[in-house]
Amino acid sequence: MHIEGDFYSLHGIWGAYACLALGRSDRGAGLVIGDVQPPDSSLFVGYRVGNDEVKLLPFVRKNVKKGLDESSYVSENKVFNVVSKSAWECFGPGEIERSISYSGESWEAGRMRCSVTSFFGAVPDPSAADAHVLRDAICPAIFVRLRFDNEAGAETLTGFFGANDISRALSDATEGRALGMARGNRLGFAVRADESVEEVMDWNAVEAAFNGTRRLRRLASDGGLRFTVEPGKSREYVIALAVYDDGVVTAGHSARRYYTSLFKDLEDVLDYALEHSRNFFERAERVDALLEETPIDDERKFLIAHAAHSYCASTELLLNDRGEPLFVVNEGEYRMMNTLDLTVDHSFHELCFSPWTLKNELDFFVAQSMYADSSGVAFAHDQGIADCFTTQGNSAYELPGLVDCFSFMSYEETLNWTLSACLYAHNAGDAKWSNANRELLARCLDSILARDRNGDGVMDVDSDRCAGGAEITTYDSLDVSLGQARNNLYLAVKAWGALVCLESFFAGRGEQGAADRASASARAIAETVSSNFSETKKFIPAVFEGGNQSRIIPAIEGLIYPFFAGADDKVSGAGPYGGFIETLRAHLDTVLEKGICIDPVSGGWKLSSTSRNTWMSKIFINQFIAERILSFPNERVRQDAAHAKWLKEGSADFAATDQVDSATGKDLGSRLYPRLVTSVLWLLPNHRFECLKMPQSH
Amino acid sequence: MHIEGDFYSLHGIWGAYACLALGRSDRGAGLVIGDVQPPDSSLFVGYRVGNDEVKLLPFVRKNVKKGLDESSYVSENKVFNVVSKSAWECFGPGEIERSISYSGESWEAGRMRCSVTSFFGAVPDPSAADAHVLRDAICPAIFVRLRFDNEAGAETLTGFFGANDISRALSDATEGRALGMARGNRLGFAVRADESVEEVMDWNAVEAAFNGTRRLRRLASDGGLRFTVEPGKSREYVIALAVYDDGVVTAGHSARRYYTSLFKDLEDVLDYALEHSRNFFERAERVDALLEETPIDDERKFLIAHAAHSYCASTELLLNDRGEPLFVVNEGEYRMMNTLDLTVDHSFHELCFSPWTLKNELDFFVAQSMYADSSGVAFAHDQGIADCFTTQGNSAYELPGLVDCFSFMSYEETLNWTLSACLYAHNAGDAKWSNANRELLARCLDSILARDRNGDGVMDVDSDRCAGGAEITTYDSLDVSLGQARNNLYLAVKAWGALVCLESFFAGRGEQGAADRASASARAIAETVSSNFSETKKFIPAVFEGGNQSRIIPAIEGLIYPFFAGADDKVSGAGPYGGFIETLRAHLDTVLEKGICIDPVSGGWKLSSTSRNTWMSKIFINQFIAERILSFPNERVRQDAAHAKWLKEGSADFAATDQVDSATGKDLGSRLYPRLVTSVLWLLPNHRFECLKMPQSH
Repeated sequence: MHIEGDFYSLHGIWGAYACLALGRSDRGAGLVIGDVQPPDSSLFVGYRVGNDEVKLLPFVRKNVKKGLDESSYVSENKVFNVVSKSAWECFGPGEIERSISYSGESWEAGRMRCSVTSFFGAVPDPSAADAHVLRDAICPAIFVRLRFDNEAGAETLTGFFGANDISRALSDATEGRALGMARGNRLGFAVRADESVEEVMDWNAVEAAFNGTRRLRRLASDGGLRFTVEPGKSREYVIALAVYDDGVVTAGHSARRYYTSLFKDLEDVLDYALEHSRNFFERAERVDALLEETPIDDERKFLIAHAAHSYCASTELLLNDRGEPLFVVNEGEYRMMNTLDLTVDHSFHELCFSPWTLKNELDFFVAQSMYADSSGVAFAHDQGIADCFTTQGNSAYELPGLVDCFSFMSYEETLNWTLSACLYAHNAGDAKWSNANRELLARCLDSILARDRNGDGVMDVDSDRCAGGAEITTYDSLDVSLGQARNNLYLAVKAWGALVCLESFFAGRGEQGAADRASASARAIAETVSSNFSETKKFIPAVFEGGNQSRIIPAIEGLIYPFFAGADDKVSGAGPYGGFIETLRAHLDTVLEKGICIDPVSGGWKLSSTSRNTWMSKIFINQFIAERILSFPNERVRQDAAHAKWLKEGSADFAATDQVDSATGKDLGSRLYPRLVTSVLWLLPNHRFECLKMPQSH
Repeated sequence: MHIEGDFYSLHGIWGAYACLALGRSDRGAGLVIGDVQPPDSSLFVGYRVGNDEVKLLPFVRKNVKKGLDESSYVSENKVFNVVSKSAWECFGPGEIERSISYSGESWEAGRMRCSVTSFFGAVPDPSAADAHVLRDAICPAIFVRLRFDNEAGAETLTGFFGANDISRALSDATEGRALGMARGNRLGFAVRADESVEEVMDWNAVEAAFNGTRRLRRLASDGGLRFTVEPGKSREYVIALAVYDDGVVTAGHSARRYYTSLFKDLEDVLDYALEHSRNFFERAERVDALLEETPIDDERKFLIAHAAHSYCASTELLLNDRGEPLFVVNEGEYRMMNTLDLTVDHSFHELCFSPWTLKNELDFFVAQSMYADSSGVAFAHDQGIADCFTTQGNSAYELPGLVDCFSFMSYEETLNWTLSACLYAHNAGDAKWSNANRELLARCLDSILARDRNGDGVMDVDSDRCAGGAEITTYDSLDVSLGQARNNLYLAVKAWGALVCLESFFAGRGEQGAADRASASARAIAETVSSNFSETKKFIPAVFEGGNQSRIIPAIEGLIYPFFAGADDKVSGAGPYGGFIETLRAHLDTVLEKGICIDPVSGGWKLSSTSRNTWMSKIFINQFIAERILSFPNERVRQDAAHAKWLKEGSADFAATDQVDSATGKDLGSRLYPRLVTSVLWLLPNHRFECLKMPQSH
């Protein structure tokens, strides 16, 4: 769909922990490995007709030195004492048509169209697929298609695709089969050799590209591809962009990038991608059609596509010392590995596109993140940071003796593993896994129950790991309304959801004892929560202690899990928990008002009445619940334009940003984040993932 | 020796293409991999007694933000919204005793002594040594020894060694055997576990180190080691600093770091270095004794040590796809690989410490850099840049159609390979290699002769690779006096040296025909050069065309090679070329005067009368020749204090800098450079390398 906005996209390369960042005018653009921060360097994409002015897409990092002509680019190389300057102009906002699809995005300007294709949908399980399928699915490459239309032209059109800091000519290594540029052996781009394409390398790529007398200067720092399109012709060039990060890349557990077992080197990846580009584009067309054909508004389509691109940027498929795949989602700008309170939110997306990654994460949480505290089994917040794994049972995040940010999340993470496990068990049709994990789920049940000392179902015991501090929730940087774990409404309903899922899991296996224990506690929670509903004020306070009067939307968040884990009857107003569900509906009806949980300025959702810090990923879940489970009418729920605007304007510097100011959309944290893929829920026609029939590779 | 000066040292890790950069006050310090540019980050080395002020060595990059207290350090982490501040003071110049030795350098201040040990002398040939020896010799580690003297103290002394951007606690991976910090799995430092040592990690390392209440914050970016020294005690801690760069690191030819075949990972390297530190220090003491016992002035000792440290920073030992070692010296800030006009200058150092690396380079030049032009065999300038090899027969540097910088050096590089080969053949006692290369040396002789069309011995044909341009010399950024190859005095005498060496090589093998052909052309050069000596002006012009009147010191440079390649009789005033030698002596006598080739401001050597751009590495060679071959008296030759001052002041930002302004010493190019190891010549008691008896590993 067409989109207005000057914002960054992260076009993630699935499983490679790499992306192409671009989209914010006059800022850096280019490929990034092992992080998600857009680079300081420029991408030069443009053309010139005859001797007209050079026109570029606005992916050029403007030189901020005072007094410099804005439409010039000065390349100063201190090492070789070279200063050069070239004139160009970027297309302005009014000259560009930007559009976004599930598979990527396009920029049309003047006689050029530049399309990025980065998301290809389903990824098969490497332990069940052969190398042929895997090279296709786990190829660390994405594409740019450049179309130059010179059909009406009377002069030759010269096109260019280049970048800073990329200065190895790929023709050297490909015997001329492919032309392109690489940075060392770690990243690069290439096109099939063709008479109309030349490699260009210089201190100043733009000047060299549009000045035929320049040579391939192998000491230079800028490189690219020059295209010559004769008058009367139009041409489309397929450029593959790839990364290749060799060797052991992690500490703590030794692991390599999985794709290094499938491809020899960068050239091999580029060669494969160019050779099989048609397959990739067919897969891309299928995901595009899926999004296009879903009957939702364009803002939601944007939120789904933008989120998927950023999510892929944080994904990392590793191969460990024992030859096993290890899937990690890194935590956006924070770079924490497999943060469990994100995993549960990513589970919806992964159940659509790669259910096996959810299993992989669940299993690795058991091996790496599980520990025992005074109440039983629990899970650590994350598995490390920046490719450095923590030791078994420990996170990089949690510290003892705190009551706020960086404290333990033992209770919530135990719920998160349980919920993710129930979602996988119900949806993946993997009986072997369910059988193997039933005992652990029973231990999780015991642990959840043990943290409710007074029998009201609600967590009231902090883990002894806190050492005098207090547990927190995933909403760590919000105020106490969502931040404190003990006697917390959000967690109470989330625990209810976990217990209802466990009841369903155990009942389905004929283990009635465990099912009954889960159900008893779920009923206790329903009663406790309902009893806290104020008949006069018509809401449930966020925390059941200290006279807290905050009103929160995520009171309903826990309803999502039974809906997708085979217990959808439990979340029905006509079901066994009908009274509880109706109470939550009444609560939401109260809080979903301007000045309470609808921001009076922006009209967007505010998760808590007492904080302007609101979280996009969680809004999407709660919108889905309000609409599809609690049957709120469209006009109460669809503030999508406000939400999309937050990403396109307030947080434009940081692609998919989770924590924003509800008035302005300004980024407050969790930038360049994977978690917004909860928006995938809007694609689901019912409560089963298989209905989606996501296209498979091959 | 004690040294005054606020300048950078690069403490290279031999063969690892890595170094510890430090020494310039208030600027970045720390470990660097794959480059030689000092980092933007800080190294925190200091202590506090009781609650006194924290005192640090000046390796802290000052925050240049306006209005900030200079003695405070603000750590601002935008990702986690943390701002912290801690107070400290750096020792001032008057409080520090800095001293440099061949093996490293030391900083004494207050109650602390911090010694870096990075140079260990000889490195054995990997193809002739077993893994046990190699782990010792090719261990990518250096050392810092920290001594804290609290013997007279009444309060506990807290010491600290820490850095920015290093935040993986090594105790996790070493089961507590070693304590330390790593950046991912690529670099780190560690100390043997001890009750008096703790790991510290925080957003602000300095505050955390000296504030006992802080924890190991695993999300933080600063890390280090805290030492506790009780009153009445003094302690010395040995800290190993190591790098480990896994996987294929080069493009063009696939190769890994050689040490990855000897060590499993970073922890393995650190463990080995700590376990065997005594061996390393014994080797270091032997190289220190060698330098100390050599009867030369302290400035020369400084120039030798400082140069060796920077040279090691550019060395890189690779392991190629066929299991063969591949030795590369990278070109300082330029990062070109095995630049052949540097190799010939490094040959003296390598013949002392690692003759096999010279052979390795010579062989790889034949495989990778040799080509044929219209005059015969020739060699390319370099083998690539920044770990990207060029294709066979091509350099990253040379371009056609130029008459200046970046043109071809076909003639000089052919001389350079020939000269390096003759030096190796004469000094390494490697008859097998000499036999295998005699035919190629004969082809080099043919090629050299073919480039003199008029028979006067002097090169007068530019390579057809220039495509209408003109060849240049290694002095590419100097003016025409040293930059133009054709009819150039410097190259004429260098060619004479090569021909005399070839004569000696072939005569020694009984190949009189080749010897005679070499000797005939050498005599022609001697005659041509002598005939250009102006009896009135008493000098030889730098270029024998266009009326050039520049006067240059490197007229004598070519004399060094016969001296060391078994033809020392030829450079004697009483030998067969006595007249020629005496003419060169008369030339030098004329030019070695203030206002000609002695800079009137600094008193240092100016290579050309017409340029203030002068080159340190070449000055050292020419000083050696003037003194030891042409017997100039000390007072004419030893401007060592001026030269040392250039590095300590004018070029203080760039460690061993080659190209400097002869008036001010300001860096003009070739910064952070390996080539200054020509200063090793001053260690040689005579014209044979074996006399030096350099200490061997084990």
